[in-house]
Amino acid sequence: MNRIGIDLGGTNITAGIIDEEGVILKKKSLPTLNERESSLIINDISKLCRELFEEFNDIVSIGIGSPGEINDVDGIVIYNCNLGFENVDLREALSEFSVPVFVENDANCAAYGEHMFGAAREYEDSVTITLGTGVGSGVIKNGSIFKGSFYGGTEIGHMVINADGEYCNCGRIGCFEAYSSATAVIREGKKVSTDSEICRIVNGDFSKINAKIVFDAAEMGDKEAVCIIKAYYKNLAVGLANVINIFQPEIIVIGGGVSAQGEKLINPVKSIVDCMVYGGRNKTELVQAKLGNDAGLIGAALLK
Amino acid sequence: MNRIGIDLGGTNITAGIIDEEGVILKKKSLPTLNERESSLIINDISKLCRELFEEFNDIVSIGIGSPGEINDVDGIVIYNCNLGFENVDLREALSEFSVPVFVENDANCAAYGEHMFGAAREYEDSVTITLGTGVGSGVIKNGSIFKGSFYGGTEIGHMVINADGEYCNCGRIGCFEAYSSATAVIREGKKVSTDSEICRIVNGDFSKINAKIVFDAAEMGDKEAVCIIKAYYKNLAVGLANVINIFQPEIIVIGGGVSAQGEKLINPVKSIVDCMVYGGRNKTELVQAKLGNDAGLIGAALLK
Repeated sequence: MNRIGIDLGGTNITAGIIDEEGVILKKKSLPTLNERESSLIINDISKLCRELFEEFNDIVSIGIGSPGEINDVDGIVIYNCNLGFENVDLREALSEFSVPVFVENDANCAAYGEHMFGAAREYEDSVTITLGTGVGSGVIKNGSIFKGSFYGGTEIGHMVINADGEYCNCGRIGCFEAYSSATAVIREGKKVSTDSEICRIVNGDFSKINAKIVFDAAEMGDKEAVCIIKAYYKNLAVGLANVINIFQPEIIVIGGGVSAQGEKLINPVKSIVDCMVYGGRNKTELVQAKLGNDAGLIGAALLK
Repeated sequence: MNRIGIDLGGTNITAGIIDEEGVILKKKSLPTLNERESSLIINDISKLCRELFEEFNDIVSIGIGSPGEINDVDGIVIYNCNLGFENVDLREALSEFSVPVFVENDANCAAYGEHMFGAAREYEDSVTITLGTGVGSGVIKNGSIFKGSFYGGTEIGHMVINADGEYCNCGRIGCFEAYSSATAVIREGKKVSTDSEICRIVNGDFSKINAKIVFDAAEMGDKEAVCIIKAYYKNLAVGLANVINIFQPEIIVIGGGVSAQGEKLINPVKSIVDCMVYGGRNKTELVQAKLGNDAGLIGAALLK
């Protein structure tokens, strides 16, 4: 018994066959070309599904993870600004395959993937936070995706942690995302002096700074980079302690590009979080994600 | 069919008989004298229950709302620093009455009361925030109290909204409570000049300032008070917008002493919140609590 998972991203549409153990048996993708009409994007999703149906004859469902606001009950993308989708009925669009079609927010799919076959597999209550270009999040409660009343909510990246602080892409000031995304590390990295190791690594071309370079420079002992990373840890801990004070999950899973730092990131942040949790006795574990970029694909396939 | 509700506060133990329509038929209280041994406090809870059982012969359950960390499954107060309770088994302590005994956090009881018979009666998903000495909170999801994995969580008052801001009683910096409690209004009220209306109202005795005086002075047009209240509204809105971005409930109920300001508070705060919600289309209502100080008592009685 296999399932199709689809990760509908801004750059690529990735479709995969996932077996009952969460293993990806096959993966295919097409460029999203997100400026196109939604019907053309849907045609490409159908094309990928058709190819997978030709290759595998025991597909029982299709699950799609899409950014934006999703009506998961009816399988409709209510709104997605990147793709220009508005009330796009993906369940109807894929009805030709005669299997159940599920649609869910991509961050929720990633959290569900980590819950089912990743770092939160042994837990019923988890929160997955992805630290990438933005800060994504999904909450699993009693083994199911936790959602707001109107198909939204759990936008933890857009929880303000510093009301007098940095501007966020969403238009507010001080969101968790404005402090804990890879983008935030890059923004701070670009503020260093020409004496910094960061400047040396990029040969003075600050447009080449990425988050890893700032982490690397900090590890080499560069004082300015160390300062940036220390502030990053502290702000990340503030947001995670908020998550614990609010949800008190059994486990928080850290994914996204920044999580590649592994224990070097998790351990110091965990120490700060432990001091910040209300009541002083933190029982929530903090771990690195296991499924990497496949979390959303796997989670989407497992939707039901 | 009636139920006993008990509000175990730091100052008073209040017990009431609540009928099936959420009406309080009888209310009695005794001073908590919270420096006493827990066994003496429990004796007084039993005494109140005994008196109510003598007067009413159709009592089917006892529900207790207590501050602190509560194991609601077993009916145990795990920890309550105000009362000095540690692992106090209230279910066992009240077993003589031969009816089911339920124990829950007092803020959760207030939220449940507002859900069952108050401002959130028509809704399945609500968040109740009480603006008093502190900021209390309870979350109702699908008609039930939402709790963390280890009997904690939904400490929304201790969500940091300004990481570089004011100290909070909990030891962290910048908690929602440090900005949105009545205590925060008083703290700011004490900073005004001697030219302020606030100073005139208290005849120069700043120790007499309470939140209502600051709101009153603002309404009279006192510039310093207006400034305090405007900042208060903005910070309250930041916290509430966070709640919506995280939980997206159908409705947020505002209780506690500050909520006595009614529409004068709710309307301007709602306008700011609407501009702050992620995605820009706020669907969550914001209303004043209906049950006042009885919310906790009523909610406790209805526990099951």
